[in-house]
Amino acid sequence: MSSVGPVTVAGGAEIPRLMDRVEQRMAALAAGHGSVLARHAGDTLAAGGKRLRPVLVFLAAGVPPPESEGIVQSAVAVELVHGATLVHDDVLDQAALRRGRPTVVAAGGRELATATGDLLFSRAFAELAGTGSAAAVRALSKATSELARGELMQRADAWNAEVTVERYLERCRLKTASLFRAACELGALEAGGGQAELLGGFGEQIGLAFQILDDVLDVSGPSERTGKSQGTDLLDGTVTLPVIVARSRDTRLAWTDLREVRTPEDAKRVCDIIAATGALTIAKDRALELVAEAKRLLPALPERQRAALELVADGVVERYA
Amino acid sequence: MSSVGPVTVAGGAEIPRLMDRVEQRMAALAAGHGSVLARHAGDTLAAGGKRLRPVLVFLAAGVPPPESEGIVQSAVAVELVHGATLVHDDVLDQAALRRGRPTVVAAGGRELATATGDLLFSRAFAELAGTGSAAAVRALSKATSELARGELMQRADAWNAEVTVERYLERCRLKTASLFRAACELGALEAGGGQAELLGGFGEQIGLAFQILDDVLDVSGPSERTGKSQGTDLLDGTVTLPVIVARSRDTRLAWTDLREVRTPEDAKRVCDIIAATGALTIAKDRALELVAEAKRLLPALPERQRAALELVADGVVERYA
Repeated sequence: MSSVGPVTVAGGAEIPRLMDRVEQRMAALAAGHGSVLARHAGDTLAAGGKRLRPVLVFLAAGVPPPESEGIVQSAVAVELVHGATLVHDDVLDQAALRRGRPTVVAAGGRELATATGDLLFSRAFAELAGTGSAAAVRALSKATSELARGELMQRADAWNAEVTVERYLERCRLKTASLFRAACELGALEAGGGQAELLGGFGEQIGLAFQILDDVLDVSGPSERTGKSQGTDLLDGTVTLPVIVARSRDTRLAWTDLREVRTPEDAKRVCDIIAATGALTIAKDRALELVAEAKRLLPALPERQRAALELVADGVVERYA
Repeated sequence: MSSVGPVTVAGGAEIPRLMDRVEQRMAALAAGHGSVLARHAGDTLAAGGKRLRPVLVFLAAGVPPPESEGIVQSAVAVELVHGATLVHDDVLDQAALRRGRPTVVAAGGRELATATGDLLFSRAFAELAGTGSAAAVRALSKATSELARGELMQRADAWNAEVTVERYLERCRLKTASLFRAACELGALEAGGGQAELLGGFGEQIGLAFQILDDVLDVSGPSERTGKSQGTDLLDGTVTLPVIVARSRDTRLAWTDLREVRTPEDAKRVCDIIAATGALTIAKDRALELVAEAKRLLPALPERQRAALELVADGVVERYA
């Protein structure tokens, strides 16, 4: 919860109280939908993670945020969608571990994971329906469409070393930044909607930075910190910014057929070559630039809200430090 | 479109006009979300089928139905969810054909099919958000949750010959009847919502009958009519009403380990044994009873609406004749 800590201070006592309500609601949902789901989705939901998206919902609604039922429902909906995408991504990636625990697909098979993800998606919209806001449903369904398109794009581009930086960034926008955007939009809508566009833009920028840094971490390791093994993206054929940059700087890499990276040992070796090109620093700088751009959107907001959102933006970067 | 024919007559010229708008909207959605989706989801959406659920949306809203944007959006949403479940079911079942055409999973792999299904789910809620009705989003998200729970239940019960009739019916309610219920509820909501509970109950009953008859068709074949090969459920380990009834009537079946049914030839042989027990007639009679019960709910409705819904109920049975 490292990124939530300082935000809690900036956001006041309302944040932990709201987060408790989110956790209780998630636990109740996991328990309330049959024994198979309780076992599998329960694991996914309880495994936690940073709960970064709910925090964005809260802060986008104002600081201190209103302690409304709608804001809790919005935060739960966003986190359920996040959980659904994790479960389905693990099906696609055939991942064995997530946050250091067995994935749903590893524990229960692809069928179970597909249906579990569908259920989490469905419950997300059921939660959001509770807010009574069609604009909120529109914002979330736009994001979930983009998440799916991002996954399709990732599959379409697998092992394609000719992917451009622009196409990589568009994929990151679809598969990651869109849900950060929606989190901010949902919060803003709870507060009346006036700042939804500005805050959505902020969310998108830090979501992009988040994904780039995630891709950097996949190359830099170590796996104890990231919860997955080094070079997973290479083994999946996912061409990320560090790979694109490194290939332009090292002829050994430019000539490597990505399909020849087959074992964790191959992947680790290629990760070391990528790191030696300086590509990780370049990618990280790109992420820092995006965070700085995101912060430049904030001055129009009230001072406390601006300060809290800046802390979240900084927290995204600190994951890497 | 056989079941739509007589309904068109009973429902008036509004039904084909509304259906045209649904088809146009589905085609636009398939074309508007990237080339990968256009190819794969486009196939799923264009393959058509009976469009039974949109017809239920229309008729539940009244006869003649209001030609509102909301009713088109509701019908599209229900059909998109139906399409999403077909794509994901085919992943789970590893099916090669759907309506006589290659499935998304057969043409593009599991990864693509999972993401395509997610995209269709997402677009369904995006459509429904257009109606501005939180009650509609609630009804659809309840149904999609139940669909996923039904899938989980089917997986949990696979190859379990001890499944009871009650548990089988609950599974049918979750995985099929819930979306028929939602279709009727969405139509009723468009008309003001007064009859949502009654019409939802009607939808659920005919949905149950529909699933039972589908399970009968899987045993009785022939595959030219059903678009999939005979005994697919047996090969998937899905224990259906014909199997449950037949096992109680034929000791050869009662002693058969369902896991020993491995090839299409095995499946065909077991299908013939099931048919010889008379189980198909018993299952069909159960479905007819459900349709009769569904019709008994209708007298409270205006005469033209009652007559049109009765035709739909009869159409569900006629699939079998």
